[in-house]
Amino acid sequence: MRILVTGADGFLGCGLVDALPKAYPHAQRIVLTDRAFSTFEPCSMERIPGDLGDPEFLDQLLEQVFDLVFHLASIPGGLAEREQTLGYKVNLIASLGLAEKLAQHRPGATLVFASSIAVYGELGDKAANVDTPCHPLLTYGAHKLMTEQLLSDMTRRGALGAVSIRFPGIVARPPTESGHGSAFMSELFHKIQAGDAYECPVPGDSHCWWMSRNAAVNVLLHAATRDKTWPTVIQPPVLHATVKDVVDATSQMTGKTSRIRFGTDVALQRIFGAMPPLDASEAISLGFRADSNLDTLARAALSGD
Amino acid sequence: MRILVTGADGFLGCGLVDALPKAYPHAQRIVLTDRAFSTFEPCSMERIPGDLGDPEFLDQLLEQVFDLVFHLASIPGGLAEREQTLGYKVNLIASLGLAEKLAQHRPGATLVFASSIAVYGELGDKAANVDTPCHPLLTYGAHKLMTEQLLSDMTRRGALGAVSIRFPGIVARPPTESGHGSAFMSELFHKIQAGDAYECPVPGDSHCWWMSRNAAVNVLLHAATRDKTWPTVIQPPVLHATVKDVVDATSQMTGKTSRIRFGTDVALQRIFGAMPPLDASEAISLGFRADSNLDTLARAALSGD
Repeated sequence: MRILVTGADGFLGCGLVDALPKAYPHAQRIVLTDRAFSTFEPCSMERIPGDLGDPEFLDQLLEQVFDLVFHLASIPGGLAEREQTLGYKVNLIASLGLAEKLAQHRPGATLVFASSIAVYGELGDKAANVDTPCHPLLTYGAHKLMTEQLLSDMTRRGALGAVSIRFPGIVARPPTESGHGSAFMSELFHKIQAGDAYECPVPGDSHCWWMSRNAAVNVLLHAATRDKTWPTVIQPPVLHATVKDVVDATSQMTGKTSRIRFGTDVALQRIFGAMPPLDASEAISLGFRADSNLDTLARAALSGD
Repeated sequence: MRILVTGADGFLGCGLVDALPKAYPHAQRIVLTDRAFSTFEPCSMERIPGDLGDPEFLDQLLEQVFDLVFHLASIPGGLAEREQTLGYKVNLIASLGLAEKLAQHRPGATLVFASSIAVYGELGDKAANVDTPCHPLLTYGAHKLMTEQLLSDMTRRGALGAVSIRFPGIVARPPTESGHGSAFMSELFHKIQAGDAYECPVPGDSHCWWMSRNAAVNVLLHAATRDKTWPTVIQPPVLHATVKDVVDATSQMTGKTSRIRFGTDVALQRIFGAMPPLDASEAISLGFRADSNLDTLARAALSGD
């Protein structure tokens, strides 16, 4: 088994990379790529820094043959909205190019694609599921949706065996990771842990979809076990809870009084804090799991898992 | 008003081009492009032959500024399925490039995109509408869907003012136009008119969605009048009728006994002949119209309109 991870130095990527040796003890080769690597610790895996938005780099990288690719690299939503050319190159064109080149060198290779719930756009009050009509409110979500469709089509005709996973904002991203509109969902945990005051931009009754990195890594690893009977787009289960409930659970766990104040940014709330219940029964029947409860979520988020 | 028509020498393109002088009598410039032009009749419009799949040609073409583009060019579904690289270049990459370059030179330009009901894939029995989940069964449909999404996003952020029109198979295409899986829907009219025998591949009770070129041209012209309150994807109304009903109406109109025999190609029937009723109320409320009945459809199809 020859494995490639893109975006391997990102928050989700680092979690996956830590889990790979145990999940694939007999992997013949594991290659990690990202624009740069923040750690120089020795590692049994090969690190290839480079920009996926550069077609030459992508060509070179994909000259190697991979049986399994975790494609996590992307320009985050807020940044991609401001920097349209950058987002177009990396989130759309590089994803299309990666899929095409992977299929050329290794027809039928497994590709696990980190898509996003940003594909849906405004969801309304009714329970959402993977077939809810998609009207993305950010270019990031439109590009994720387009990539999903290319991958579904390539899988239909056997060029690849792809699964796109619609991830919610993963918590708790390190404060250094910027560009995500959903950054507040991670900040909450860091601020409570540090005992710092924090002006949360959205109201406390904002309903979000939550997932820890630990749960997200398990989702990725499970997705890589796909077979031909699976759908090509998976909406994994999430925790559906208000910002205030998460703050309360986290405060209780740390034993610290929360110094969080809630704001009134309704534009941000509309995108990340107006989530209806989620019907993920299809994914659950395939073995995908959410964090079991808010305590598990808070514990994972606080411990960096 | 500076207008560009791509695919201008195709069946739908020729119909549109005939209608443009009356629809835009004060147009400053009308440019037509296609791989080649089958007619050399003098024409008040400028013809620029070339391959949209060639990035250099596309660059050169879009150096001119256009206020309104009708983007009709595409590799038909059956051909694109066999020639994946060709389909990818023209149906996906050229469409994305055209949109990006148009927006660069003329932000907010109007773009009317000929999408297709191939975006839906298998539809089931329930009435479909523009928000029915899309699971394309052909790469052609996947590329149309991806283009729709790029255009919707560009319209959301004001880069373009685009409308994607989900056309059914337009009848009656000339017999020389090959590559469409739905070719039988046009053949029927030609064979009945000629009094020829014809082995229709699908069963007579196959339910199709029908539209004449005349109706399709009116849909395109109406789409170009869009304003900001419109949705970016339009499912225009169609006639929902069985192949046999259309054959009967056409035979009656020609006064010739039909020599059509029906077949059993269930794979083809699944794609084109298993269409449920269509709820196009949103498009109708915006002023879009189908052919008024099967007689109108047959008359238009037989007269080449």
